[in-house]
Amino acid sequence: MATVKSIEYAEASAEVRAVYDDIMATRKTDRVNNFWKALASHPPTLRRTWESIKAVMAPGALDPLTKEMVYLAVSATNGCDYCTTSHTASARRAGMTDAMLGELMAVVGMANETNRLADGYQVEIDDQLRAAP
Amino acid sequence: MATVKSIEYAEASAEVRAVYDDIMATRKTDRVNNFWKALASHPPTLRRTWESIKAVMAPGALDPLTKEMVYLAVSATNGCDYCTTSHTASARRAGMTDAMLGELMAVVGMANETNRLADGYQVEIDDQLRAAP
Amino acid sequence: MATVKSIEYAEASAEVRAVYDDIMATRKTDRVNNFWKALASHPPTLRRTWESIKAVMAPGALDPLTKEMVYLAVSATNGCDYCTTSHTASARRAGMTDAMLGELMAVVGMANETNRLADGYQVEIDDQLRAAP
Amino acid sequence: MATVKSIEYAEASAEVRAVYDDIMATRKTDRVNNFWKALASHPPTLRRTWESIKAVMAPGALDPLTKEMVYLAVSATNGCDYCTTSHTASARRAGMTDAMLGELMAVVGMANETNRLADGYQVEIDDQLRAAP
Amino acid sequence: MATVKSIEYAEASAEVRAVYDDIMATRKTDRVNNFWKALASHPPTLRRTWESIKAVMAPGALDPLTKEMVYLAVSATNGCDYCTTSHTASARRAGMTDAMLGELMAVVGMANETNRLADGYQVEIDDQLRAAP
Amino acid sequence: MATVKSIEYAEASAEVRAVYDDIMATRKTDRVNNFWKALASHPPTLRRTWESIKAVMAPGALDPLTKEMVYLAVSATNGCDYCTTSHTASARRAGMTDAMLGELMAVVGMANETNRLADGYQVEIDDQLRAAP
Repeated sequence: MATVKSIEYAEASAEVRAVYDDIMATRKTDRVNNFWKALASHPPTLRRTWESIKAVMAPGALDPLTKEMVYLAVSATNGCDYCTTSHTASARRAGMTDAMLGELMAVVGMANETNRLADGYQVEIDDQLRAAP
Repeated sequence: MATVKSIEYAEASAEVRAVYDDIMATRKTDRVNNFWKALASHPPTLRRTWESIKAVMAPGALDPLTKEMVYLAVSATNGCDYCTTSHTASARRAGMTDAMLGELMAVVGMANETNRLADGYQVEIDDQLRAAP
Repeated sequence: MATVKSIEYAEASAEVRAVYDDIMATRKTDRVNNFWKALASHPPTLRRTWESIKAVMAPGALDPLTKEMVYLAVSATNGCDYCTTSHTASARRAGMTDAMLGELMAVVGMANETNRLADGYQVEIDDQLRAAP
Repeated sequence: MATVKSIEYAEASAEVRAVYDDIMATRKTDRVNNFWKALASHPPTLRRTWESIKAVMAPGALDPLTKEMVYLAVSATNGCDYCTTSHTASARRAGMTDAMLGELMAVVGMANETNRLADGYQVEIDDQLRAAP
Repeated sequence: MATVKSIEYAEASAEVRAVYDDIMATRKTDRVNNFWKALASHPPTLRRTWESIKAVMAPGALDPLTKEMVYLAVSATNGCDYCTTSHTASARRAGMTDAMLGELMAVVGMANETNRLADGYQVEIDDQLRAAP
Repeated sequence: MATVKSIEYAEASAEVRAVYDDIMATRKTDRVNNFWKALASHPPTLRRTWESIKAVMAPGALDPLTKEMVYLAVSATNGCDYCTTSHTASARRAGMTDAMLGELMAVVGMANETNRLADGYQVEIDDQLRAAP
């Protein structure tokens, strides 16, 4: 159970409703996820977080599916149940197939393994890898 | 400085050389990174890790660039200096532009932020998100 | 469900009861949380952990509310459901308002975002920041 | 060494300079930290991150010193060297004494310890702690 | 609820059944845990992960009980509920007593505490500790 | 560089010297590591942390080598450079061979990989695994 009171649309202030309306319009849906209802307990955080997410997840040099898969990879690495569940769903909506999810998780698993091997052996960074970009 | 003795090619056993040769052939390079030289202190880990990485990073349902960017996203999230540096380099070699790196890090940043907001407020997972795949 | 048998007061040894009594007296409550009942499966860990917590959380250069909010910030960052829930409750008891919780989580979110941006870009520490304290 | 080219003021675009100017004016300083110079490699991330940090760290229900200490607590928990160093410096500027830093780190240490004990024993959340806020 | 369809033995392909059979034979049990049924949604990950686990957890320079306790220590540190629960069970089967679990968690707790103190104070590594192995 | 002033023996208070003396006597060495010198900036944290470490790392149901390897496993998982380096050294002093270190890191790597796979697929805990201890 959330540690703050979730704000439903019917009881929301005009400021919160404006964000909810934009979320639903942008995502072409008629409901708002629990995440946003919890953030609405602090309207400035709701608005700032939504505006940041909206800007960051918009198509650009990376397509929306790649962005959703990266989001899922980070969420799985952090062990965030809510975000893992929600971004698996949104990545599927953006076109992620079962085969893609399988390969994504394989990469996430290997990265977590080798991250800890590199740290565990305190491997020094190769000079070549430090070459100025 | 690594906490184990790094194994150079000249002093490597036949078993380790075989892995080094395969790494260089697969990556079309004439050098082996410090990561593998440290892992060579325990040859079974060197061989198993390389074979897993080789299989997981091969093109499949996801292309190599996407896989490298996911690897980088996980490494940045875990704060692994070695892997962040090396996979930034390999993602660039696979075609990652500055604009793509900028958007990738923006997604990584937002995912880390919202992961902790969802956990920090203990947001409950929406029933709709749990829908069977 | 806990992976160890929780120890209820009625069945506790004198050593465990003494800790439980001190917890209840210090916190001005007549119950002991599940966390302590699980730790009681290993009495030395129960006693040492309680004595450390009692010392660390006592008022000093920092007031109890600030300490509880810092505890909550760490717990959210680590994704610990139990500690996030319990320290949200104890921070509220110590005077944390909804507005304070909202700002606290906003800081936690931004810190997690920028931690990963700094690591993700491998930013070098500025000489000025290293100035001897 | 950063994995992206840092942008110095002299070579910055008007958009980046505007952010740098605002950072220096807000912080009453004549220099910009390496963190911002690295973010400037992707101007939208620079601007969005700065605007978020500026809003989140402004005085409100929590004072700036408390916010800086929470930022430091998260950075230490995440093991981010850059952010730990920079926010120790900024917390000191905001008034953190050695005694306060000592107590802060003691709380951070205990929270990290008990977070893992609660997770390690899979302690169930007490019904009382879940009481609606 | 898992985000992928779990594969039961009755509906599994020959490739997946071969892995399930090997898991049950190796572990001397007649059931397969949910972890493997979820991984079976991507057969190459199932097979590779099982073969790696089988090789890594076999008796060698370290005995199986020590390996299970290290696995549990990592899982508790990462806050992975599934792995903490399953490796507590497998460590008990390998001979872990309540007293051993109590001491294991005490070490895990202290390591997490001091890891963050060392990072939080940015302690420099002593030259003596860096001595070549 | 540490963010606090390290306290050398010659300048230490009687309280700090008493802890340093006990560290050197317990560890049969004539020097104190940088970690303790940094903690000495806040004497109560120095004393409490040392007394806890001393109690937790003493031989008991687990032998000192096993405890050092668990400490190293946690430190590698958290990516703490200082603790990874120092506990590799202390585990070697307690008898860890190269082969044992190789197997230890292999377990740490696999645990980190499967932790994230279990979280990434949101695998449900099997009823059998939850059986009361």
